[in-house]
Amino acid sequence: MTVLERFFQGDQAALARIVSYIEDCGDNFLDLLSKLYPKAGNAVKIGFTGPPGAGKSSLVNCIAKLLVNEGKKIGIIAVDPSSPFTGGALLGDRIRMHDMPSDGSVYIRSMATRGSSGGLAGATDNVTIALDAFGFDYILIETVGVGQVELDIINTCDTVVVILVPESGDAVQALKAGLMEIADIFAINKADRPLSDSIVAELNSVLMMKNEKSDWAIPVIPTEAINNKNIDKLLAKIHGHIEYAQSSGKFKAHRIEQIRRKIFDILHKRMHDVMLKKLDRATDLDHIVEDIYERKADPFQVSTRLFEMSDFG
Amino acid sequence: MTVLERFFQGDQAALARIVSYIEDCGDNFLDLLSKLYPKAGNAVKIGFTGPPGAGKSSLVNCIAKLLVNEGKKIGIIAVDPSSPFTGGALLGDRIRMHDMPSDGSVYIRSMATRGSSGGLAGATDNVTIALDAFGFDYILIETVGVGQVELDIINTCDTVVVILVPESGDAVQALKAGLMEIADIFAINKADRPLSDSIVAELNSVLMMKNEKSDWAIPVIPTEAINNKNIDKLLAKIHGHIEYAQSSGKFKAHRIEQIRRKIFDILHKRMHDVMLKKLDRATDLDHIVEDIYERKADPFQVSTRLFEMSDFG
Repeated sequence: MTVLERFFQGDQAALARIVSYIEDCGDNFLDLLSKLYPKAGNAVKIGFTGPPGAGKSSLVNCIAKLLVNEGKKIGIIAVDPSSPFTGGALLGDRIRMHDMPSDGSVYIRSMATRGSSGGLAGATDNVTIALDAFGFDYILIETVGVGQVELDIINTCDTVVVILVPESGDAVQALKAGLMEIADIFAINKADRPLSDSIVAELNSVLMMKNEKSDWAIPVIPTEAINNKNIDKLLAKIHGHIEYAQSSGKFKAHRIEQIRRKIFDILHKRMHDVMLKKLDRATDLDHIVEDIYERKADPFQVSTRLFEMSDFG
Repeated sequence: MTVLERFFQGDQAALARIVSYIEDCGDNFLDLLSKLYPKAGNAVKIGFTGPPGAGKSSLVNCIAKLLVNEGKKIGIIAVDPSSPFTGGALLGDRIRMHDMPSDGSVYIRSMATRGSSGGLAGATDNVTIALDAFGFDYILIETVGVGQVELDIINTCDTVVVILVPESGDAVQALKAGLMEIADIFAINKADRPLSDSIVAELNSVLMMKNEKSDWAIPVIPTEAINNKNIDKLLAKIHGHIEYAQSSGKFKAHRIEQIRRKIFDILHKRMHDVMLKKLDRATDLDHIVEDIYERKADPFQVSTRLFEMSDFG
């Protein structure tokens, strides 16, 4: 039996191999994704993001357990693009898994791939296709921080939960910096700590204007993952947002936008490969680069000339 | 007098305008860069990176002051690609500037540009061209964390200083995650704190094997920016590394590599623009995307078909 056949029979070892293959962009991995794609489309994707130390993993674990109680199967993707200073993601996942049902209803996968410039968001999305095709009902994607890569990753989700802690402090600043646009729900975790009430109030007041103009009022939920407190409320809001998005047509509109972006990304990558090959063959690049180094030429004019010489234009 | 003329006469207000123009990719900004490029090439670029809270800004300020004492002019670029949770970069810079000589020998510029996916590294490099052409002797680039964007930024530097603190803890982990490759020098800042000696020892032992195989032994310098302690030692090592790189030919080799990468990046951007236009015109993309949404098609096969239909291949 092939790995793919075992995959479709629900073999988690086969799933793990296929995910690795996709992650590593193995030979003809696009053909493999092509085979998985028609079977995918049923899973709901929920993104969780926030600063280091906000308790994202604990919160995601709690949500996963509640969903399992609802009879759902859960895939978790933990992405940490800037892991050098946090480290130990894989070890952490093994510890996390101990806390989870071992009946196959939860699957956790770490993606700490560094060096895959521009590719991590695409790779993460490809992995969700595999988990989706495997039959998980919910895919929970968690990622640290909100740089551009993280935004690209989280953008592929149907619902985005931004997790802050009372000490996140200047929440207004955070909102200005782009979180406002991506958050469908805020969770203030570790809400037993001081200043929790004030960050909730502050966020609510910042969100007021936006909420007035929208059919979806972005909720701010104080949670305590470690004491399993208010997780049910958070999950209710997640379900609520999905229902809202589906009935308003936003769910589909967002997915359509993601598909469009995915096509561009794949084309982009292919064009890049072609460009590299053409440049390699067509021109005496070493000589040109040497001239630029000696300031006899500049990279901007040279690029324009190369671009016009090629048949891309 | 045009802005460019004032720029070349050393007018810092003109510099600020030109930097903004480049950062915003204003009309024909590549032509502007073309004009600046021949005047650039004299500045040495030094990168500083490390986790949040390592005291990078203080350390960079200290280094800048020492360089001013040597009669040099210093441009500082502070990049924070993932600012939402740290925030306040611009305010911070204004505070920093108060601490600096006001005779024009130091210029500080923040780049907290978010949303410029893939473009931040290119934009930062373009800004160094402006600072270089303006006549700064050293350009100090500092950036938080080491995600891919930060690596791309820091890679353009001639010398890279990685700043850790005693609490950075598992330094071995950090090294494994890619810092080993980029660090020419380590600074352990806040070295008055506990565990400083042990992180220095640990780093040295990890580096031993690499150092044995190289002409440049990567030094690990304990520093206290806040007490101005050992900054002179750190600067001596920076000078030492530049001299080593220049005499060994690595300085030139690295810059040649950067020029090559820059040409690719510019071409890449232009191809991307052309692709978007062609796709827009050539195909009934909306219809195709709808089919994919309904799982009647998949983005992988569609991209292959579009790619073959276009004249890129």
